[in-house]
Amino acid sequence: MNSVDPAGGAPLSSVSAALAGFVAESRWADIPAAPRHAARRALLNHVGCAIGVAHDPAVRTALAVMRPFSGTAAATVVAQGVRLDPMAASFVNAIASNLLDYDDTHLATVLHPAAPVAPPVLALAEQRGLSGAAALHAILLGIEVACRVGLGVSPGHYARGWHITASAGVFGAAAGCAKLIGLTATQTMHALGIAASQASGLVENLPTAAKNVAVGNAARNGMLAALFAEAGYEAAPAAIEGPLGWARATGDVPDLAAMNGGLGSRWEAARNTYKPYPAGIVFHAVIEAGVALRRELGDRVAMIDGVTVAGDALLLARGDRVVRNERDARVSIHHAAAIALTLGRAGVAEFEMPAVTDAALARFRGRVAARLDESLPRGAARVLVRLVDGSERVRTVITPRGSLEVPLTDAELEAKFRDNAALGGLGDRSAALIAELWALDAAPSLTPLMRLLT
Amino acid sequence: MNSVDPAGGAPLSSVSAALAGFVAESRWADIPAAPRHAARRALLNHVGCAIGVAHDPAVRTALAVMRPFSGTAAATVVAQGVRLDPMAASFVNAIASNLLDYDDTHLATVLHPAAPVAPPVLALAEQRGLSGAAALHAILLGIEVACRVGLGVSPGHYARGWHITASAGVFGAAAGCAKLIGLTATQTMHALGIAASQASGLVENLPTAAKNVAVGNAARNGMLAALFAEAGYEAAPAAIEGPLGWARATGDVPDLAAMNGGLGSRWEAARNTYKPYPAGIVFHAVIEAGVALRRELGDRVAMIDGVTVAGDALLLARGDRVVRNERDARVSIHHAAAIALTLGRAGVAEFEMPAVTDAALARFRGRVAARLDESLPRGAARVLVRLVDGSERVRTVITPRGSLEVPLTDAELEAKFRDNAALGGLGDRSAALIAELWALDAAPSLTPLMRLLT
Repeated sequence: MNSVDPAGGAPLSSVSAALAGFVAESRWADIPAAPRHAARRALLNHVGCAIGVAHDPAVRTALAVMRPFSGTAAATVVAQGVRLDPMAASFVNAIASNLLDYDDTHLATVLHPAAPVAPPVLALAEQRGLSGAAALHAILLGIEVACRVGLGVSPGHYARGWHITASAGVFGAAAGCAKLIGLTATQTMHALGIAASQASGLVENLPTAAKNVAVGNAARNGMLAALFAEAGYEAAPAAIEGPLGWARATGDVPDLAAMNGGLGSRWEAARNTYKPYPAGIVFHAVIEAGVALRRELGDRVAMIDGVTVAGDALLLARGDRVVRNERDARVSIHHAAAIALTLGRAGVAEFEMPAVTDAALARFRGRVAARLDESLPRGAARVLVRLVDGSERVRTVITPRGSLEVPLTDAELEAKFRDNAALGGLGDRSAALIAELWALDAAPSLTPLMRLLT
Repeated sequence: MNSVDPAGGAPLSSVSAALAGFVAESRWADIPAAPRHAARRALLNHVGCAIGVAHDPAVRTALAVMRPFSGTAAATVVAQGVRLDPMAASFVNAIASNLLDYDDTHLATVLHPAAPVAPPVLALAEQRGLSGAAALHAILLGIEVACRVGLGVSPGHYARGWHITASAGVFGAAAGCAKLIGLTATQTMHALGIAASQASGLVENLPTAAKNVAVGNAARNGMLAALFAEAGYEAAPAAIEGPLGWARATGDVPDLAAMNGGLGSRWEAARNTYKPYPAGIVFHAVIEAGVALRRELGDRVAMIDGVTVAGDALLLARGDRVVRNERDARVSIHHAAAIALTLGRAGVAEFEMPAVTDAALARFRGRVAARLDESLPRGAARVLVRLVDGSERVRTVITPRGSLEVPLTDAELEAKFRDNAALGGLGDRSAALIAELWALDAAPSLTPLMRLLT
């Protein structure tokens, strides 16, 4: 464990140093089965999400803006038929992965770790001809570092306005890239410190495309941190936890044990979860309660006069909003309740503009009220509907599907992948891609995977 | 003036919107002579500083790392004989400009605005074939925006750990690039909001090369913000001042009047200052007092037994440190006093490794004590020397040369430029460069300037 000089001097062993030592010394052969499989699941889900939005204008625009700023084309942009340099490719792929809020979620931090971590690792591995096991190992360690750094500043960091996927994700990208290219522990420490001076991303911007730029930056700037550390650039040892370092600058006294405790035995990467719905994770219980009520009510949903959705402070803070566009819809209590109760489903299409502007859905959203219920745990929701005859129905969901308690199965993840692949135009390659991704740690190179993703 | 809905809703006119409107509507013909000339001085000083460190390993490494990640070579890397794409070139040039802490300083914020602002504007102007006046105008507005955004969160932002040159500089880079490429007011507002989600840079990392990465990022990410806004990406209107926006996330309730008040009449860019010494600005009074005492003492400097340097809290916080390398030396009370009192000068050479490791200077540094004197204003210092005979000499400098009260003259700026040009190997082009830079607003393109800088 690291500790701090009680006289207030420099830490005897910094957060960066402890995480860096763990990353540099980790061997794939020593990783237990559970975190190994967690890495495979994160990767499968990441690639599927990135394929699913291949036609989205936000992704196409990101590609168009970055293209003139790309060096030698050496890394695949997922499902675009284009290769860019590894930094530009990872920027676009990270944006795609996270675009619909459909990617993996580390619930304790609300961090989506694969989007910032996997793209730079895959891009560098493709460029340098490294093995599937090397890439998967680096992705696992990158996810672990992102979640741990995020955990050490949660929940204050997010509550203060930091979009943790970007602002802590950059550490994971740096750690993953550092592992992949074989940096020493000292170099990895510097990579993490350089990442600290690149961390950014604001909750205020979440309803807008500015969010995507920050997620893309977490990926490419994490890679940049590793490359600068490889080239000899250094950082302050206490860049993360020091008196003028990242954690305190962003408003938090870090929980060092959450960051560094039990490295190699406690795996935050194994506490990653996968979404059945392309909406903010805290809206899943709303959707499931709504779908269950619709099943119960059948045709009588037409008699709904009013809806009250109760949830914890985070649900209210994120979700009680006017819905103007797709981004709003994916983080709206009102929209989640409306589609679940009237349509009985919440797939990608139910959050796109036709649904946003649908007059009946808009009217229904207007009948939904949001209410704080502090007795409900994080991620839970209670949906109460009042019918025109004055009767009420209520359904409470504490642990929605995709939660830690009710994780998506591998088969459900595969089904989600197939849906995404079909949306992105790679439906006919689903089986081959799924097979390649599950067995990536046996692949001598990423070439077969990247050929399928081109 | 902007105001906020008293009910707590969205700002009626956001900080970004007000600054963006000012930037988009500004016309060079309407700019008074003083801010125009301030822009010329900032540019002259910036280019000189960037040339001066052309041989520095930190700059060479930055160039080497970025080179494989550069698209079409369209922008000059100062004094390197290389062109990169505008994003990569501006990254390297920003690092060079700020590397020695020898660049311009907006004293009220301790922000060095030209380093993040001028490189991306010059690089884009070179690529797009725009005029010298367009570039100078954009640099002026970018500097203005960076200083105003920084002013609105000062001094808390820096004190909490944010390296304001990077963390607020990115807004200036975005504003400058937005003006240069002709974005509308709305697009410019989005560029500023996208910049907010890219702001970073930590004081904890200032003694290390991680600092440089953040300054380089401010330049390239500000450009990226403008390019994404040009391509249609949007940001939250209150990305800067909103409840979960940049200012509050970084720890401050912003002073909106400091950011938006008196646009076009109060020019923060005209309050920019230029350093006679390549050291942190707060050490200049220490140096001048030391040089004055050395002149007074003559050979009796050998009889100095002890030195006490008194200054305000910022001086003590930044400068009371162990000196291990050149970066430490440039922000050390002890080193500043030692070179001033024993050598009587403080040029670039006096902060390089031979001086850092010089045994006599190291011994002298050990005799220097730092002491807080809250009666002294920011930027002032009192140097007291005790001789072996028990006698004392004291010298207090309230306003050192290069301050707002005693600004460097144009002739002094030219002399500094010539010194830098000689250090960077462009000494024989000094006269041509100076002439080109003073008259840039009459140049139809940047081609002649960039040819001289190649």
